[in-house]
Amino acid sequence: MTRRSIATVCVSGTLDDKLAAAAAAGFDGIELFENDLIVSPWSPAEVRSRCADLGLSIYLYQPFRDFEATPHPAAALRRAEHKFEVMAELGADTLLVCSSVSAEAMDDDDLAAEQLAALANAAAGRGIRIAYEALAWGRHVNTWDHSWRIVRAADHPALGLCLDSFHILSRSSTLDGIEDIPPEKIFFVQLADAPHLRMDVLQWSRHHRLFPGQGSFDLSDFLGRLKNYDGPLSLEVFNDVFRQSDPERTAVDAMRSLLALEEVPAAPELRAHAFTEFGVDGRSGPELQEALRGLGFTHTGQHRSKPVELWEQGACRVILNSAVTRPRTPGTASLSAFALTSADPAQSGVRAEALLAPPLPRTRGPREAELTSVAAPDGSTILFSRDDDDWRADFLATGEIDTGGAGLTHTDHLGLAQPFDHFDEAGLFYRSVLGLTQLTTEEYAAPFGLMRSRAFATGDRTIRLALTVALLRRGDWAPAVVDPQHLAFATDDIFATAEAIGPTLPVPDNYYADLRARFALPDETVERLRRFGILYDRDATGGELLHLYTPVFGGRVFFEIVQRTGGYDAFGETNAPVRMAAHRHARLSS
Amino acid sequence: MTRRSIATVCVSGTLDDKLAAAAAAGFDGIELFENDLIVSPWSPAEVRSRCADLGLSIYLYQPFRDFEATPHPAAALRRAEHKFEVMAELGADTLLVCSSVSAEAMDDDDLAAEQLAALANAAAGRGIRIAYEALAWGRHVNTWDHSWRIVRAADHPALGLCLDSFHILSRSSTLDGIEDIPPEKIFFVQLADAPHLRMDVLQWSRHHRLFPGQGSFDLSDFLGRLKNYDGPLSLEVFNDVFRQSDPERTAVDAMRSLLALEEVPAAPELRAHAFTEFGVDGRSGPELQEALRGLGFTHTGQHRSKPVELWEQGACRVILNSAVTRPRTPGTASLSAFALTSADPAQSGVRAEALLAPPLPRTRGPREAELTSVAAPDGSTILFSRDDDDWRADFLATGEIDTGGAGLTHTDHLGLAQPFDHFDEAGLFYRSVLGLTQLTTEEYAAPFGLMRSRAFATGDRTIRLALTVALLRRGDWAPAVVDPQHLAFATDDIFATAEAIGPTLPVPDNYYADLRARFALPDETVERLRRFGILYDRDATGGELLHLYTPVFGGRVFFEIVQRTGGYDAFGETNAPVRMAAHRHARLSS
Repeated sequence: MTRRSIATVCVSGTLDDKLAAAAAAGFDGIELFENDLIVSPWSPAEVRSRCADLGLSIYLYQPFRDFEATPHPAAALRRAEHKFEVMAELGADTLLVCSSVSAEAMDDDDLAAEQLAALANAAAGRGIRIAYEALAWGRHVNTWDHSWRIVRAADHPALGLCLDSFHILSRSSTLDGIEDIPPEKIFFVQLADAPHLRMDVLQWSRHHRLFPGQGSFDLSDFLGRLKNYDGPLSLEVFNDVFRQSDPERTAVDAMRSLLALEEVPAAPELRAHAFTEFGVDGRSGPELQEALRGLGFTHTGQHRSKPVELWEQGACRVILNSAVTRPRTPGTASLSAFALTSADPAQSGVRAEALLAPPLPRTRGPREAELTSVAAPDGSTILFSRDDDDWRADFLATGEIDTGGAGLTHTDHLGLAQPFDHFDEAGLFYRSVLGLTQLTTEEYAAPFGLMRSRAFATGDRTIRLALTVALLRRGDWAPAVVDPQHLAFATDDIFATAEAIGPTLPVPDNYYADLRARFALPDETVERLRRFGILYDRDATGGELLHLYTPVFGGRVFFEIVQRTGGYDAFGETNAPVRMAAHRHARLSS
Repeated sequence: MTRRSIATVCVSGTLDDKLAAAAAAGFDGIELFENDLIVSPWSPAEVRSRCADLGLSIYLYQPFRDFEATPHPAAALRRAEHKFEVMAELGADTLLVCSSVSAEAMDDDDLAAEQLAALANAAAGRGIRIAYEALAWGRHVNTWDHSWRIVRAADHPALGLCLDSFHILSRSSTLDGIEDIPPEKIFFVQLADAPHLRMDVLQWSRHHRLFPGQGSFDLSDFLGRLKNYDGPLSLEVFNDVFRQSDPERTAVDAMRSLLALEEVPAAPELRAHAFTEFGVDGRSGPELQEALRGLGFTHTGQHRSKPVELWEQGACRVILNSAVTRPRTPGTASLSAFALTSADPAQSGVRAEALLAPPLPRTRGPREAELTSVAAPDGSTILFSRDDDDWRADFLATGEIDTGGAGLTHTDHLGLAQPFDHFDEAGLFYRSVLGLTQLTTEEYAAPFGLMRSRAFATGDRTIRLALTVALLRRGDWAPAVVDPQHLAFATDDIFATAEAIGPTLPVPDNYYADLRARFALPDETVERLRRFGILYDRDATGGELLHLYTPVFGGRVFFEIVQRTGGYDAFGETNAPVRMAAHRHARLSS
């Protein structure tokens, strides 16, 4: 009788969605992916019990990476011990070890066999088996017959093979001889089909071109070499997204890309986030007030004539505006504007206009100060102020005094979800109109699909914007908050801040169990992070990010508190799936 | 003063959309892509005049392919003459010739130079210049310096270079020396940026795996080699679409993929399309009646108790059902069911159920005959009948007699637009549940974005289904009918049929002008096709497809009439963009 199994990566959702779907379709068991466990609020024992209730076995736990032929066998075995603990709780008896992709891995089959035998020995003591799989892109071991030679040489009863049709057939490896492997040494078989695909330069050219400034080519150098050419400069961009989005916007985006290559008025220095404004209504307004008060903000100012409030803490300023018409869904809040302090606001406006940023009336809505403003691609407003005085005059003091609250010092970054059709357009807009530098682009698999994030900043990182987009999401599934906006504040002591503020987003214990193993952090450090729901990341040079999140308020807005050390320059993207699953769980349980 | 230009491929829509967008964004001119002209109802002279009205120059007409170093220079020059005629009408003076990708092209720079000089000479006589571009994937010529050596050798004033940043920078070619090209020999400069991209096996694995039976791997062979393995068979499929679609459906799809690999009840022979049913309402019903009458159908039967009509012509049967609840948008029609004649309907149902096709009550809605039925992934119903008698008994003869009408003989195929999330699922469903063979998958750039089509058929081609999906379409743009369904009838003489039927979808004259050049068809053949709006395709072995379309009725349904000769086995996918643009124009002008 065939036992049928499905890996949790195959389907969308958080672990509860995935298990329910697998059981409903009649599967006998699952492969549990570590990431699905990490973002789950269920303990491993609870997962085991849920699977038992659903009639699902946990056939495999995976992946365990970069183990064999390592120069650091003791550390690798310690990492494995953590997995064994989790597996014992889960009641899973087979661990997938995929062949190493590490640059440090040695090309030494004897060493690989010896270390895998040692791993199998440690596993066997806990009733666990090791299924060794050759990844098609493994550094030294990337064919099934190579992995089989190593497993044979290791000759340990708790060590066998995992055979994955993708890794074998994608390389067009011969199958001859695979039938001679003793069945008891095949611990696991994974099936996947795939289309024949290639990304040769033709495919790249026909589907993925971008307008100048949106990609990685050095077009200034290219054009610099053609300075005597006086014919037309013509954009020829084959792009699947542009092929299906509003042509008027695409054409403006295209024109901006050419203008930005030429002489444009210089971008004045941007010095600070002056304030961030949310449009609110009668339901979302009180939610955000409550949230801000919980974060230690003070309602310091009230607009002299409009239902507009100023909330402050240190140099963090948030405006709640009940007079803007932006929150289209009743009860929701929406980031309606942000203001940047410019060395020359008028010049910022001139540059923006030269780059086709739609200018907005200089006085509009509730703001009476004459600030230069332009419309951003997502429909929000960007204002340029010279200094605080030019907008603060609109507000009458409430008498409440900002006492520094929870130690938030300034705005670290804005997180702006972009509409799919306009992600590259938005990037070029922020880069060119504001004169920001483009930082890295990251992609990650989140519970409800693939995400891309791309960040922009001033050279001194005073201003940081992180754009995100769901790369493929369509249809009716994806029940989470799909396009939240967020505002991140900096603190110099996130633990003190965390002590001082209201409830934050609960982070699963599984996350911390993994963190301990992943970064070899001391138990007490991990415990301290866990207690406050603080997430952690570390870059290659040792720079650290400690950050925490609030729940979602007003339907689509949340806040983040970050502490950066040692020049950490990213945004903790690796933790975003944890945050997204936690927001989903918070919503379901509220 | 820089003249700024944009290729019409850069933006979405039909030519009118593209020109309006380019002008609104302030471009000075355009590169006109042949395909945009071909699908346009405007003559070249009208395009010229429209561009003039908008202040747009036509800087370049493109592409002209596979010219240089050809063994058939006379035929290639004749093709070029056609382009020159079109360009004269357009008032465009520069033709892009991209380096040959033909397997027939010879690796002979002298011959290339000689032929390009001859082409330039012919062009110069009409005031036209030739801009020669090295494609990054050109067969012999794929670097800018190689194209420059050939242009220098040809030494003709009407021959120069087109330099495209993509083709140059994607290959990381050196730019050294490019500044020494005399400016007068650089006829055109095209700019595109691009991200660094690769589709290595890692990317392929992490984003594009499929469930067994949905891709190209031979998993039966793979599993056959592992017949002594008795552990779980586990699906491990990383797929961006599945990551973001309804997990319950994905899990069922996954289970079906495993079941189909194992022993399932045999698929009984399918012998014919018995009928196709459309759900209609008070507005779409009369539209479809009118359309069917226009195609020569006769209203032969009336359901004995329900508002259900049978329309016939030869072996083509269409049922209009006003009792189904499917047309959710008032005024629209929707394909609600189709029936296939099976050698063993009960067994067809048993197999479908074994493969998790949702069974439907054996009698439902207006059909009183007991037909086995299952639900298709798009929500429509598939019925299995033994012969016509088992469903025809529901209908009373109206007294109207089918006299063969317009010569339509039988149903050639159904065209079923699929929801994006479920395209691969639908393919596996039709392949496994009905036991159909998967034919080729085609992708093409349509006016409103990239399309994919995948066809399934019985071995004898009695039953053919063509599934289509818009690969990326999201957001609010794409004003055309985005997911039409269609029913294609066969004829043995499409010209006689075309004479006999009502108005068909107008096809642009530009299409026929191109057809003449592309297939070297006699003028009188092209004129005959043009007169009736018949589209044409020819396969590599000389098999031909002649086909024509009706307008869209009931919001989302159209009909096609096809005549296949010489074993033509495809669906004229190359003409689909023409049809899509024509449907758009018909809508706008109605």
